[in-house]
Amino acid sequence: MADRVFNWQVRVYYEDTDAGGIVYYVNYLKFMERARTEYLRSLGFDQQALMLDGILLVVRNTTVEYLKPARLDDTLEVSVSLSRRGRAGFDVVQSIWRGGERLCKGRFSIACVSANSLRPVGLPVNVRQAMLLSSQDAPSEP
Amino acid sequence: MADRVFNWQVRVYYEDTDAGGIVYYVNYLKFMERARTEYLRSLGFDQQALMLDGILLVVRNTTVEYLKPARLDDTLEVSVSLSRRGRAGFDVVQSIWRGGERLCKGRFSIACVSANSLRPVGLPVNVRQAMLLSSQDAPSEP
Amino acid sequence: MADRVFNWQVRVYYEDTDAGGIVYYVNYLKFMERARTEYLRSLGFDQQALMLDGILLVVRNTTVEYLKPARLDDTLEVSVSLSRRGRAGFDVVQSIWRGGERLCKGRFSIACVSANSLRPVGLPVNVRQAMLLSSQDAPSEP
Amino acid sequence: MADRVFNWQVRVYYEDTDAGGIVYYVNYLKFMERARTEYLRSLGFDQQALMLDGILLVVRNTTVEYLKPARLDDTLEVSVSLSRRGRAGFDVVQSIWRGGERLCKGRFSIACVSANSLRPVGLPVNVRQAMLLSSQDAPSEP
Repeated sequence: MADRVFNWQVRVYYEDTDAGGIVYYVNYLKFMERARTEYLRSLGFDQQALMLDGILLVVRNTTVEYLKPARLDDTLEVSVSLSRRGRAGFDVVQSIWRGGERLCKGRFSIACVSANSLRPVGLPVNVRQAMLLSSQDAPSEP
Repeated sequence: MADRVFNWQVRVYYEDTDAGGIVYYVNYLKFMERARTEYLRSLGFDQQALMLDGILLVVRNTTVEYLKPARLDDTLEVSVSLSRRGRAGFDVVQSIWRGGERLCKGRFSIACVSANSLRPVGLPVNVRQAMLLSSQDAPSEP
Repeated sequence: MADRVFNWQVRVYYEDTDAGGIVYYVNYLKFMERARTEYLRSLGFDQQALMLDGILLVVRNTTVEYLKPARLDDTLEVSVSLSRRGRAGFDVVQSIWRGGERLCKGRFSIACVSANSLRPVGLPVNVRQAMLLSSQDAPSEP
Repeated sequence: MADRVFNWQVRVYYEDTDAGGIVYYVNYLKFMERARTEYLRSLGFDQQALMLDGILLVVRNTTVEYLKPARLDDTLEVSVSLSRRGRAGFDVVQSIWRGGERLCKGRFSIACVSANSLRPVGLPVNVRQAMLLSSQDAPSEP
């Protein structure tokens, strides 16, 4: 599956750093979530609207690899690439870049659950369709 | 009003620090909220139970003064002293200590609101009574 | 002193909210700090460069008033207005707006300290000059 | 390698939750780090002392699996079990429990780096020895 890569920019503030002088490693996961949220918004869906429809998107599992540290004031690019679309969730691979340097890589499995019971429910059809259309927009390899 | 002072201990972890090498100043407010939550729990009330009763306790305003920085691995004592009990909320004064040194002082006005509408509602009678009893427990000055 | 008001936009993500369904009140202070950092950057100064010059800007005290809650996915405007320029620090007043609604007001006293000793030092002359020029840029009242 | 399991208790506060009404998934990583820090402290090492010795312990990679959500006011047990001791780092497996229910599992690879250059350095001999002794304390399987 060759999906278009979505990119989102974040800036590093004091709140993101720790006493080691670098970005606190847990906060890269926040940056990656901001980018996933903006990817979904670019498809026409925001979290608040999904929640009002009784749906939460939750992370089932994640693997993150830390390559190089980010620092205060850095401008980072966070990529989102859809790697699996399923009936009840989807997977993304993400990276965080500072210029040409990759600082961090992650993979996230996202499940769609009921906001009340937190049990798995199907991903709404319009979300799945928007993801499909978005991936078909991707320039095909020659 | 001479209320008993409640104390709660917190430890400083990497998550609490910033690139300045000290505790990120916003996080002192989290430490003070942990102590307020434990003060209420000591009176017999937890936030989850209040929320299930349709009530949220929210901060209306706060003043915080930073005296000295805390550092990684510090053990801190956070005090809570009730300074006003009202029909729809209460005020507390709090300090953060490291041994005999005061690092931070704060004052918080807390309002009781409906969890749905977020409009002011009366503080439950049993909460008010527990606060009153707790303050009467306080050893009186000779 | 009639300073130009600086504005910075922030978006509310899951990381910013709490179980009350609204923005966790402590996080408004992070939003206000992002805006202060961008205000300083707009004057030509970033925190990393100041730190390399041996200087930290730290909050000495703050007063924050919470008027209305922000929610997931909200786009907020955070204002910064310089209210005092001193030899060793400065004060700002800040507000957070959602459209025409003010959600939060804050006042912060910022001190300039040595990154090593954390003792007060003078605010660098070029920072003070940039603040002065910025305030003179402000359109004068007729 | 059969290491003794270290356990640490954490309480869930508002700061840890999100608008989904449950613990924000990124914060489980903070809980697991608190437990790792306390595990090291139980061996006689604190992060501040290691940093003063010019050493940082950084996460190289992590895999986290989310099984069930934690909620406001929950008391959680976080386990730490050393699964690999190397010359320049170590691995741990961790779980978060609420009573008999496992909520979350994680694996972390930790590297020892220079606090200045952030390049890999050997894990101090006394840390390695304390880890070895701690694992020998473990009751052997019959």
